[in-house]
Amino acid sequence: MPAGDVIDVFDRVQVPEKLADHLRTVELVDHHVHGVFNEPVDRAGFEESINEGSTDPIPGFMTQFDSPLGLSLRRWCAPLLGLDAFADADTYWKRRTELTPGELADVFLPPARVARWVVDTGFKGDLISTPQRLTELSGAPCSEILRLERLAEDLLEAGTAAEAFPEAFRAALTAAAANPEIVGTKTIAAYRTGFDIDWSRPSDTQVVEHARALAARPSTRVDSPVLIAFGVHEAAERQLPIQVHVGFGDRDLDLQRTDPLLLLPLLRTMVPVPVLLLHCYPFHRQAGYLAQAFDHVNFDVGLGINYLGVRSTALVAEAMETAPFAKQLYSSDAFGPPELHLLGSVLWRRAMGLELGGWIHRGDCSVEDAIRIVDMIGVHNARRVYGL
Amino acid sequence: MPAGDVIDVFDRVQVPEKLADHLRTVELVDHHVHGVFNEPVDRAGFEESINEGSTDPIPGFMTQFDSPLGLSLRRWCAPLLGLDAFADADTYWKRRTELTPGELADVFLPPARVARWVVDTGFKGDLISTPQRLTELSGAPCSEILRLERLAEDLLEAGTAAEAFPEAFRAALTAAAANPEIVGTKTIAAYRTGFDIDWSRPSDTQVVEHARALAARPSTRVDSPVLIAFGVHEAAERQLPIQVHVGFGDRDLDLQRTDPLLLLPLLRTMVPVPVLLLHCYPFHRQAGYLAQAFDHVNFDVGLGINYLGVRSTALVAEAMETAPFAKQLYSSDAFGPPELHLLGSVLWRRAMGLELGGWIHRGDCSVEDAIRIVDMIGVHNARRVYGL
Amino acid sequence: MPAGDVIDVFDRVQVPEKLADHLRTVELVDHHVHGVFNEPVDRAGFEESINEGSTDPIPGFMTQFDSPLGLSLRRWCAPLLGLDAFADADTYWKRRTELTPGELADVFLPPARVARWVVDTGFKGDLISTPQRLTELSGAPCSEILRLERLAEDLLEAGTAAEAFPEAFRAALTAAAANPEIVGTKTIAAYRTGFDIDWSRPSDTQVVEHARALAARPSTRVDSPVLIAFGVHEAAERQLPIQVHVGFGDRDLDLQRTDPLLLLPLLRTMVPVPVLLLHCYPFHRQAGYLAQAFDHVNFDVGLGINYLGVRSTALVAEAMETAPFAKQLYSSDAFGPPELHLLGSVLWRRAMGLELGGWIHRGDCSVEDAIRIVDMIGVHNARRVYGL
Repeated sequence: MPAGDVIDVFDRVQVPEKLADHLRTVELVDHHVHGVFNEPVDRAGFEESINEGSTDPIPGFMTQFDSPLGLSLRRWCAPLLGLDAFADADTYWKRRTELTPGELADVFLPPARVARWVVDTGFKGDLISTPQRLTELSGAPCSEILRLERLAEDLLEAGTAAEAFPEAFRAALTAAAANPEIVGTKTIAAYRTGFDIDWSRPSDTQVVEHARALAARPSTRVDSPVLIAFGVHEAAERQLPIQVHVGFGDRDLDLQRTDPLLLLPLLRTMVPVPVLLLHCYPFHRQAGYLAQAFDHVNFDVGLGINYLGVRSTALVAEAMETAPFAKQLYSSDAFGPPELHLLGSVLWRRAMGLELGGWIHRGDCSVEDAIRIVDMIGVHNARRVYGL
Repeated sequence: MPAGDVIDVFDRVQVPEKLADHLRTVELVDHHVHGVFNEPVDRAGFEESINEGSTDPIPGFMTQFDSPLGLSLRRWCAPLLGLDAFADADTYWKRRTELTPGELADVFLPPARVARWVVDTGFKGDLISTPQRLTELSGAPCSEILRLERLAEDLLEAGTAAEAFPEAFRAALTAAAANPEIVGTKTIAAYRTGFDIDWSRPSDTQVVEHARALAARPSTRVDSPVLIAFGVHEAAERQLPIQVHVGFGDRDLDLQRTDPLLLLPLLRTMVPVPVLLLHCYPFHRQAGYLAQAFDHVNFDVGLGINYLGVRSTALVAEAMETAPFAKQLYSSDAFGPPELHLLGSVLWRRAMGLELGGWIHRGDCSVEDAIRIVDMIGVHNARRVYGL
Repeated sequence: MPAGDVIDVFDRVQVPEKLADHLRTVELVDHHVHGVFNEPVDRAGFEESINEGSTDPIPGFMTQFDSPLGLSLRRWCAPLLGLDAFADADTYWKRRTELTPGELADVFLPPARVARWVVDTGFKGDLISTPQRLTELSGAPCSEILRLERLAEDLLEAGTAAEAFPEAFRAALTAAAANPEIVGTKTIAAYRTGFDIDWSRPSDTQVVEHARALAARPSTRVDSPVLIAFGVHEAAERQLPIQVHVGFGDRDLDLQRTDPLLLLPLLRTMVPVPVLLLHCYPFHRQAGYLAQAFDHVNFDVGLGINYLGVRSTALVAEAMETAPFAKQLYSSDAFGPPELHLLGSVLWRRAMGLELGGWIHRGDCSVEDAIRIVDMIGVHNARRVYGL
């Protein structure tokens, strides 16, 4: 990317120059992300795509632009569309509609300066770009994450008999572990059962029984604690890293039942493959505690970074409390508008610079240490965890 | 109010002047407040009235002036009594005793610059001023909130037969909905049952049964989940906004059972009238999440603003994380000393100026957007929600 | 201590000079602390001793020096070993190995400027120094805390018959209450049962039954809610202050079951002796609430101060929200390396200066009030609570 394309994420704030230079340009691993929209969306669809919690249309009395995320979007994305920073919502929207999805990706993906996307392909896969397309659009390679519940559903929908389900699931995971493009797995137990379940490893007999019950239902949506625990333990046995959706998400989940502390029974007893606690807001302090307490536990504060906008500085700061710096990763959890792929990166760089810059300024950290912390969280930890 | 009466809430701090000017003078809607004391209180009574959590006298080894709220009171209220800022507790108290309740109201209410009080009249109604008296004292009109549990108790105490209770309750709510002075309702389920109850809509048969059981007890204190859920659903059916006490309150409540996430089963299934999550500390991040996830959910961080004193800046900042700006409201939750009606306003204005001023200073927000955010939270959202 | 030994905890930050002078030199009561290591430790042992949560060796891919605590240790402790601030981990370790445990204590204990250590002797008592030795090393007197579960275990291990257990326990507590060196007790219910137990006072019959069941087991590890509640109520009846481990600790505990709000049933009904909620992170806001709500409840944010390192400033700030200033205490909860005894003190002084200095700077507090708050939390409250 030409030097002119480096966004000055420290415009109007003071950050020690060496740290600022590094943060402006370091190429990140975005360890949990989705594709960009393949097709144009209308304004209602766009506004819904920048509201994580709701599953309804945005009501008439408001616009989602009037939110911390919307404000940051107007601040950082409008200039990339040739508009003034803080262009109003209508102006932003009008300009955006003049560009195709591919052009929008061209505008927003490269300045995110992401060296590798680790893509979760498990959700609404046909609305958004494949990893291959994301690589074409961004110029950066992708690795893939296999969603465990999706795998189970695919097997059952393909007609796998309940009796054959455990072996078929294991075979698929073994194949995934041998596939260099797949670097880990993910569970959305948060959405399906909450974390307050029996996490002990089920027997095949139990698994067959639950698979049979599921196959008899109109939908194969996996919401059986037995099938979910089965998936996690099988992935662990194959040394596959396991991403876990934690906390912040849409209102289908019972947020209080996604407190990561409820995972303690699992974390204490599982085969200790890398566990990646994703998002975690507002339980990020609990997640940091777990990352300190268990060698195999790591976490991020993705998704929250985008949704908190300017306040992501506080979130990023709170995420550097008890966890060793080797146990935190960067992610955007962007899904849909490529603005989100960019914003995650811009807001994280900026927040790290403001927080670590403050540490340096007050004599609490050296510049070299700050840069090392940035590299661990932004790049190296993901490489180690996923073997990239 | 003469210009001279505008309190300089930004004394000694730097806030962009246009925003500062607006925040000093904008007339707020205090959407959840109580009256002021009608009679003089002694010092013990005063100190108890500035401690929210305890229900005991303040012990001899301390004074409640030595708290964040006490410190802010000495900072902001002492000068209005003609004392130096930070006058000591004894000096403050001595001066305060020289004024009648009416004179104290004259001192503290007008500079709060509140355009309308939305008054909860359900608690200790005879110790404190009526809405009519609050209007006389402050010059600002009042609207009223009907407490649902109080209504049920009033009906039963007036001898309503259990069999007639459902209809009588509905009739009273219908009358309230037609009364322009009553703009909403409130539930104190937090104090009576906690939020981990069955929120489904009960049948009249169930309601009658619970009303009968209650009528047979020496006290008519409503603590039946069935009667509470009944009240909420009936209010919703009549399109009445519903305030919900959440979090911070006195020690009679089980604070952990007032986590607003426990309201999810209600929020997902109720008729979607405006729900106002009140106070919310220390669950304000959870409340903000709900306000993003549900179109009909709104929240405030009143009460906490006063009790955190100087630290209210952090609370106000944390309240601007995930919720759209259209979903937060201002309140003081003042009760008793008119200092609290003033302090809520002063501390909120100051905190908003410090936080938003920081956003502007670092280029994260325009001045115009900051002013718009102030107006939404401080004025417009309340007008929309209650139809004022 | 010669003036030259005063650490400038405000190096490179601006704090009002009078407050800074006071904070640099005030002699603290460290109301919850353990001894220092009696013997040299190897590097693995040292790294484990600066990780609170884990019970495993530090894995090969990281060093615990790369954590907030490690960073603060390199910042504040390296210079006391004659190294540059931020000396790297290997350099630090090499220099440290040149000193005996006694020499390390000589380096780190006196500049902590602690006037009195209140020592919990209940854990790993033979690896670390006795109170007597801590006094020799530091020059400061010690008081002692009796661990209730340890007392029960000692009695049973000494062969006390189950039938005699209640009386023997009471007699031991009565003796402790008469012993001027013992100023309080402690419960580790957090580790043994969690707080969601029946806290009502058990009958002697129940206690005997549980003691008998325990005596019949291979280990006398007290994990019976009945025996734990018995210990707490007996201590309270003898007017002994009761420290309660809350929150942050190693992964043996179910952190979510150590939310101090779960203590409400106990706090509401017990004989109101001083209760000291220890550590509390990440539930410190809940702890502050309880300290406001109950005259007999106090709290600290020890342990967390060390483990959050530079971020302890935020923790100390959040601990000054709702609680009266008379209800918070200072502690380090240091255990093992004397660096921790020093760091707790340095980080607390620094955090208090930064936070209170900000209050003063913005006109929210007078210098005199800030100094008074420091003295209450750092010295006076502990003296009052324990009768020192």
